[in-house]
Amino acid sequence: MGERFVSRSATFTEDLITDFAHSYDPQPFHIDRQAAVDSPFGGLIASGFQTLALAFRLFYDQGAIADCSMGSPGIDKLRWHRPVRPGDSIQTEVEVRDLRVSESRSDRGYATLAYTVTNQDGEIVMTLACTHILRRRPAPAGTPD
Amino acid sequence: MGERFVSRSATFTEDLITDFAHSYDPQPFHIDRQAAVDSPFGGLIASGFQTLALAFRLFYDQGAIADCSMGSPGIDKLRWHRPVRPGDSIQTEVEVRDLRVSESRSDRGYATLAYTVTNQDGEIVMTLACTHILRRRPAPAGTPD
Repeated sequence: MGERFVSRSATFTEDLITDFAHSYDPQPFHIDRQAAVDSPFGGLIASGFQTLALAFRLFYDQGAIADCSMGSPGIDKLRWHRPVRPGDSIQTEVEVRDLRVSESRSDRGYATLAYTVTNQDGEIVMTLACTHILRRRPAPAGTPD
Repeated sequence: MGERFVSRSATFTEDLITDFAHSYDPQPFHIDRQAAVDSPFGGLIASGFQTLALAFRLFYDQGAIADCSMGSPGIDKLRWHRPVRPGDSIQTEVEVRDLRVSESRSDRGYATLAYTVTNQDGEIVMTLACTHILRRRPAPAGTPD
């Protein structure tokens, strides 16, 4: 418990933000630079769904769950704390909060991971807790269950 | 309270699934048809992040918040109940769970909306609660605060 993983960082360009938003979240402050200036955000910002997806990608690329991930039952307490703007870089830090073996299937377990996503100034832009289903390593021969 | 909105439906193609996954969620069961067959899901499935984003897009297009959305502080209790596979169509139903005026800024309020996303067979694939910040309509002249 408490083990931590820190990802590389990735930068949001204006094209990355607007391309995603046109497909998935076409609110004016995600797709229209001028309308965004007049919005509560004062300029273009990334869709929170894109921040979420890219933050996961960064964690996934770090490798901790890449060989054993079996999906996820869900996410709790996702909070978007600050906007992410063109030119901002984000980084994902993940801390293990809970680990338990599945009661019905002994080949897998559940890991609850606390994600903290920060920008290039170290400001927190997003936090969440995601539970992951992970394949367990086989026990060495002769190990009691 | 209790007001409900039902979206149109949209269909996940294999290309839609793998294109998203290559950018944001390159787990084998989202990008590689053969590896997916050997995965716990028995075939290619959509990234849950894509299901989330597309479900929001469907609700947004319905129009209920299109003219007044000012962003979102976050999501609670997101659960992926069933996989979404190529050829599946999803639809988003949203129910108003809570409405309150901002205490610090009287021009806006918070709406907590329960999302239920179903597939073409009426099976629930995802549920979540998202809070939205919404611009309030100006009160008619002469209305007391």
